[in-house]
Amino acid sequence: MRKTITIGLLGMGTVGTSVVKILTENANDISQKVGIPVNIKKIMVRQLDKNRNIDVDAEFTTTIDDIINDPDIDIIVEVMGGMNPTKDYIVQALVAGKHVVTANKDVVAKHGQEIFEAADKSKVDFLFEASVAGGIPIIRPLKQCLAANKISEVMGIINGTTNYMLTKMANEGLDFNSVLAEAQAKGYAEADPTADVGGFDAARKIAILASIAFGSRVSIDDVYVEGITTISTEDITYAKELGYVIKLLAIAKDDERGIDVRVHPAFIPAKHPLASVHDVFNAIYIKGDAVGETMFYGRGAGGMPTASAVVSDIIDVARNITHNANSRILCTCFSQKSFCPVQNTESPYYIRLLVADKPGVLAAIAGAFGAQQVSLHSVIQKRKVNNSSELVLITYQVSDANLRLAINTISGMSVVNKISSVIRVEAEDFA
Amino acid sequence: MRKTITIGLLGMGTVGTSVVKILTENANDISQKVGIPVNIKKIMVRQLDKNRNIDVDAEFTTTIDDIINDPDIDIIVEVMGGMNPTKDYIVQALVAGKHVVTANKDVVAKHGQEIFEAADKSKVDFLFEASVAGGIPIIRPLKQCLAANKISEVMGIINGTTNYMLTKMANEGLDFNSVLAEAQAKGYAEADPTADVGGFDAARKIAILASIAFGSRVSIDDVYVEGITTISTEDITYAKELGYVIKLLAIAKDDERGIDVRVHPAFIPAKHPLASVHDVFNAIYIKGDAVGETMFYGRGAGGMPTASAVVSDIIDVARNITHNANSRILCTCFSQKSFCPVQNTESPYYIRLLVADKPGVLAAIAGAFGAQQVSLHSVIQKRKVNNSSELVLITYQVSDANLRLAINTISGMSVVNKISSVIRVEAEDFA
Repeated sequence: MRKTITIGLLGMGTVGTSVVKILTENANDISQKVGIPVNIKKIMVRQLDKNRNIDVDAEFTTTIDDIINDPDIDIIVEVMGGMNPTKDYIVQALVAGKHVVTANKDVVAKHGQEIFEAADKSKVDFLFEASVAGGIPIIRPLKQCLAANKISEVMGIINGTTNYMLTKMANEGLDFNSVLAEAQAKGYAEADPTADVGGFDAARKIAILASIAFGSRVSIDDVYVEGITTISTEDITYAKELGYVIKLLAIAKDDERGIDVRVHPAFIPAKHPLASVHDVFNAIYIKGDAVGETMFYGRGAGGMPTASAVVSDIIDVARNITHNANSRILCTCFSQKSFCPVQNTESPYYIRLLVADKPGVLAAIAGAFGAQQVSLHSVIQKRKVNNSSELVLITYQVSDANLRLAINTISGMSVVNKISSVIRVEAEDFA
Repeated sequence: MRKTITIGLLGMGTVGTSVVKILTENANDISQKVGIPVNIKKIMVRQLDKNRNIDVDAEFTTTIDDIINDPDIDIIVEVMGGMNPTKDYIVQALVAGKHVVTANKDVVAKHGQEIFEAADKSKVDFLFEASVAGGIPIIRPLKQCLAANKISEVMGIINGTTNYMLTKMANEGLDFNSVLAEAQAKGYAEADPTADVGGFDAARKIAILASIAFGSRVSIDDVYVEGITTISTEDITYAKELGYVIKLLAIAKDDERGIDVRVHPAFIPAKHPLASVHDVFNAIYIKGDAVGETMFYGRGAGGMPTASAVVSDIIDVARNITHNANSRILCTCFSQKSFCPVQNTESPYYIRLLVADKPGVLAAIAGAFGAQQVSLHSVIQKRKVNNSSELVLITYQVSDANLRLAINTISGMSVVNKISSVIRVEAEDFA
């Protein structure tokens, strides 16, 4: 009968430090849940002599082999981040028969298949709850709690930085650049904010969620991505006036057209549960054939919330170890479904444009939309910008391809001075 | 190597029929997840000759022994409801070495300990995700996804009937009796609505959630309960004016005063995530030391949402069977913590009363509150009712005992004509 579960920790940054903190502070509860204590034996760091504000009774090392070749170590916990050499460390650990828990969305989104194959071959666990939406339980709910369902849709606010920025823009009327500067000052956005504001961070996470939700591998390259850099205060004001909120959504749908996975800003109705997800909070809304609509809400980043998911995964692996039940749930991508090209996706659209202020213009524009089967649900015209009239339209459901054709035609019309914004409307059921 | 997982189903009502439907329609996906097919062999019903609108290839029986004594049957799924004889059937099944999945909150809330002991003795699984909040994953998130955390608070809207009624009262200005009649007509409320409107249904569910969240057994008798029958349209109007929403909350807190578990109507700030949970939807808000705040939202009742949880539990048991990993996670009540008497619980309070319309009355009332260490956060006086003035007060944080003493004194004052309402305020951080 084994007496402890032994961990090798890779990385001692914000998340690593929080993992140590939880394993120490909640040690009694955790050992009751597992049946035996869970201890960290070794920690791999870049610098041995760095001053760390935490007491931990473990050996520090700078070499991966010290950890992978240690026969005492059961679980390798990867919270060092990055792609290289992290991905290789994970695969080596799995090949060596170690269970692996990671918070690394980049590696999972890009190399999920190779990693799962290695885990399957070694009959070990590979858990990654922390890789999407920080502390919010979402991987295990999809793989287990909602396993009875055919999932048709996952729609999430899964990037805290952009949600903080959009909330701030909406509440305080500030423009994109001011809120970005503030988010950077607060440490919510990085010096190079591209991964967040460009939508790429959300794209990695939705690739992971879509793979699990639909049982079919979706990689980062399958995700259509638009960021929030073009969202203006005018769009936010119009959204409010029309009963909407603008959010950066990560969307995955599975229907007869194929799997449709994308990240882009979208208008969502103010009464939708996702509309009241503010600041750095994340939420994931899921539709299943049996359960209907569910939503999971919480902190999508930060040391302690992320470590909450990491340590809960550790407890799960430890429970598997004590019951000889490892590799109980591995890869759940049982099929490879086809994808729906973004051109074929459908939604209503919000369009803001500047037009000449003279009779017949609205009729000409409505006609051009009509020629591409785009019907208009609502029109606002009330503001002058220099010598132009500003026109705001919301269309009925239309394919992206038809919408783009209509926009092309319209942008070539002599009475159209500028197409300022084209933004999808989601979670709206216009007949 | 076994070839199938075999189920005996107890009950073929709304939930039972939905369980059959999901197991049939999603059979391929489910057998991929489990590795082998999951089939229903026998179904226990009250009447063999009843016309059922569903095709199912299973034997019907009216006797429990037909199912418990069938060596082919791995999992007994109890969706017949009620306490007697259901509880005995569950225990007999566990003693006979069958895994049990149930949707029965009454049995779990009342007899959890005996049932878990039987499951532990037989080393079989006992899962009950569907017993709280229907399709919303909450038991497994507490036991697994958030296992790293010390949970300090669970606060839920876990009765759909009363949430539907309160939403309707708030949106349409209708009174309690009209919305009750409408809820009954729609089938959301029963002919005898006591279990719902009296708070007892929510009490059973919060007893289950508190036990798991705090690792300490909480039974239905430990829950302080107030229903919504005294909530008036006036209270709802004042709530809105003051920036609050009235919800029937099920609350469980664990701190140095002990475990505090109660169900009662409460004012919550309109910006709190639970405030936008409308109609029959349920949501459970959880605070953990690592994860911070999380919330789980969805449909808390209905055949298909409940069956979603039941079938997901079946899949979990089946995965355990194929990995010889049953009884992996059983009872998690490792300690027996003490309870905090309701008198010692603290919150701000909303109080509405009718007072004589003459000088010095407010000063006298404020003085009586002050004498019991009750400070007033806000006061509204604007409406006349007959010859009285209506006074609405919100206090700062105060113990229930002190509040009651103050109310007693005040109700005896000659200038006080009526104490109309006393309602707790939750999730508000008045210093």
